[in-house]
Amino acid sequence: MVASDLRERVYRANLALAATGLVHGTFGNVSGVDREAGLLVIKPSGVPYDELSPERMVPVSLDSGRVVDSPLRPSSDTPTHLELYRAFACGGIVHTHSESATALAQARLPVRCMGTTHADYFRGDVPVTRALGPDEVETDYERHTGLVIVETFRDLGVSADEVRAVLVANHGPFTWGEDEFDAIEHARVLELLARMDITGRLVAPDAPRPAGYLVDKHYLRKHGAQAYYGQHRT
Amino acid sequence: MVASDLRERVYRANLALAATGLVHGTFGNVSGVDREAGLLVIKPSGVPYDELSPERMVPVSLDSGRVVDSPLRPSSDTPTHLELYRAFACGGIVHTHSESATALAQARLPVRCMGTTHADYFRGDVPVTRALGPDEVETDYERHTGLVIVETFRDLGVSADEVRAVLVANHGPFTWGEDEFDAIEHARVLELLARMDITGRLVAPDAPRPAGYLVDKHYLRKHGAQAYYGQHRT
Amino acid sequence: MVASDLRERVYRANLALAATGLVHGTFGNVSGVDREAGLLVIKPSGVPYDELSPERMVPVSLDSGRVVDSPLRPSSDTPTHLELYRAFACGGIVHTHSESATALAQARLPVRCMGTTHADYFRGDVPVTRALGPDEVETDYERHTGLVIVETFRDLGVSADEVRAVLVANHGPFTWGEDEFDAIEHARVLELLARMDITGRLVAPDAPRPAGYLVDKHYLRKHGAQAYYGQHRT
Amino acid sequence: MVASDLRERVYRANLALAATGLVHGTFGNVSGVDREAGLLVIKPSGVPYDELSPERMVPVSLDSGRVVDSPLRPSSDTPTHLELYRAFACGGIVHTHSESATALAQARLPVRCMGTTHADYFRGDVPVTRALGPDEVETDYERHTGLVIVETFRDLGVSADEVRAVLVANHGPFTWGEDEFDAIEHARVLELLARMDITGRLVAPDAPRPAGYLVDKHYLRKHGAQAYYGQHRT
Repeated sequence: MVASDLRERVYRANLALAATGLVHGTFGNVSGVDREAGLLVIKPSGVPYDELSPERMVPVSLDSGRVVDSPLRPSSDTPTHLELYRAFACGGIVHTHSESATALAQARLPVRCMGTTHADYFRGDVPVTRALGPDEVETDYERHTGLVIVETFRDLGVSADEVRAVLVANHGPFTWGEDEFDAIEHARVLELLARMDITGRLVAPDAPRPAGYLVDKHYLRKHGAQAYYGQHRT
Repeated sequence: MVASDLRERVYRANLALAATGLVHGTFGNVSGVDREAGLLVIKPSGVPYDELSPERMVPVSLDSGRVVDSPLRPSSDTPTHLELYRAFACGGIVHTHSESATALAQARLPVRCMGTTHADYFRGDVPVTRALGPDEVETDYERHTGLVIVETFRDLGVSADEVRAVLVANHGPFTWGEDEFDAIEHARVLELLARMDITGRLVAPDAPRPAGYLVDKHYLRKHGAQAYYGQHRT
Repeated sequence: MVASDLRERVYRANLALAATGLVHGTFGNVSGVDREAGLLVIKPSGVPYDELSPERMVPVSLDSGRVVDSPLRPSSDTPTHLELYRAFACGGIVHTHSESATALAQARLPVRCMGTTHADYFRGDVPVTRALGPDEVETDYERHTGLVIVETFRDLGVSADEVRAVLVANHGPFTWGEDEFDAIEHARVLELLARMDITGRLVAPDAPRPAGYLVDKHYLRKHGAQAYYGQHRT
Repeated sequence: MVASDLRERVYRANLALAATGLVHGTFGNVSGVDREAGLLVIKPSGVPYDELSPERMVPVSLDSGRVVDSPLRPSSDTPTHLELYRAFACGGIVHTHSESATALAQARLPVRCMGTTHADYFRGDVPVTRALGPDEVETDYERHTGLVIVETFRDLGVSADEVRAVLVANHGPFTWGEDEFDAIEHARVLELLARMDITGRLVAPDAPRPAGYLVDKHYLRKHGAQAYYGQHRT
């Protein structure tokens, strides 16, 4: 079977996503990529989490966007994942409608970097995209969702390696990571950060931002070449 | 026994509602309908969820509103359900006092359609009724609750097929669906949408609405004749 | 042993209170009363819930306020319970520091009656007391807490039979009921109502109150002589 | 093995902290101290809670700050703990990024003492530090975090024996106590108090503070020489 290892891993990742409590019903999906094989693997569309199996995960060609070796239709969000894999260096992508991140996406507000919890994961604000125009929604809607994410990072000059999450306006969050499980971890922490930012916006809308040197310190003590957090100093 | 299949289904649906965490104590009820038999079946009034059984579910004539083949009194909200079955094409109805939907009903605010999570289920705002007048409360209160719901959809020009939920002013939500379980799913997602709309009202009261073409896109990719979400394309 | 039945019941009620999630650590207590025997029974002071037993429940004379047949000290809130049993016709009393009711007590705001969920339990706002003066805190603090509750109901003209809950300013809620378990049910629903009122105060501070006839309708369909909710019509 | 009893206790305390739900992923840590042996023991850096063991807890010299008898690196927050043990009389220290306390730290707002729930634990507001300057972050960042906490208590004239918690600006809370488990209890109650204070700030930002004599009454009935709460009157 094509991509059986990746199917197994993406299957487990989708179960792990369901266990986070971030998804409602059949909302949400995880994909993983095998760049050598030129394939992503993603959850089938509209199938409840308890009816999934490794065999039901759907491989899709990174190049053509066509399904490979599966009778099932992939998640309707597949064209969004495709555009992100094409533009960003990542191994896994997660989409949820998690409550607080989605509420900010609906308010068209970024998740502001207001402290070290945020900076431990993301080097700066998690941006929100512009709204899509009528043509972008009418034709190839899901592909345009991916393109507007890429455009957002490019226009704001944000690195998709250092901020691995985005809010799509009036829709919800996408996150990515080294692999599927790293992307899930980013989805989880993004929801926590969104809740904290919402509280901050309400109790102290004009509170000063943390200094850039504090944000960098926390991000780099975990992620930079000089990282000194954890047991595996390089 | 009259309507034994429907009683069994409505019994299971009431347990499923209790398991959602949306109801407190004996609050809340689910009904189902057999339009050929001219009957609805509903939870008995004031009986704790753990004392329910299929036999204790109460059939009521759609025509006369009278109990059929049961010594128990039906939910006090039965006349509301009756009016909804008479006016709307649906197979099941749910009433809860779920926290955030009820808080909006008390604030006399609709659940605004602010994003795709909402549009995946409801094509536009979930409306809130006007308050009932003294005569409507004094006599046949529960029937007038049903009538004011029907009036709200008619006056606002909202389709009860496309928006299958309502907030009754200073009371709480009613939802409906293809069957009892679909109505429960709408009750669950309505509570999520209410929480997200409350957050949005607080952090960005003037945030722009999603464009109508985005709302339609999401609603129709799941519900329209051209639906392409899920495995069963028609 | 004195009051062994009541001790057993109060013991079970304290465990039931702990199971609600409304109390933190050793906070909170339930008492019950045997008016013929002239005794209340209450939780011992500062003992963790998992170290309680029926024998450890402490009987206190309603008349003298003295401990009867126990080596343990009763809850430090006992004098408050005593004053409430002396003034109000009730069989059980509960004190918690439940989060949202306490937050309103700290804000010196009542739990407003904003809908039918509230009116199903309490016929009008749950009032908040005035702050105690220095002399009232210095001497017999816990007794003055009870006296200020009684004063609040008298001065506002609220019936303690129809509104069986109060917020003590900068402290927290007390509830009462027919018996210990009814008082716990009021503590639970009060917390739900406090959460909904907090949301309402934030999203629509000027929303109109429900009409008095709606409040009365709901209260009286459950509690009045003409009650028609539940299976036991009188 | 050096400090094996303390290692065992700190191990159990770290598991207890994880069980509170206050920490996300590998965030958070507990340390304990043996002042006679001149050692603190703390969680290793970046190790998931389910991979901890007593042997993996890391002893550090109070005097030199160097690791003793362990191949593992201690939590990156160790220098903060060291400064607190040097300045404050306490037996255990906890650091979390608990949601509401962290949200207030990000808003640079103290947890205000608004009622008796707070005063039962802390005699007055839980302060928030100033932000660190660039030099303080660049060099010995974690040590400067400890120093700014000590400075905050000194400059505000707050007793670290009576208020055993602090918010570090744009970072999160630290708490301490008689021992590790007392510090955890303070971390838990601080989060509850932060949630209640956030609600109060939103619904009634100008609500009056509780009188000083009420705060003292509650603090001292539990903690002073005249304490009368609990079974062990002194």
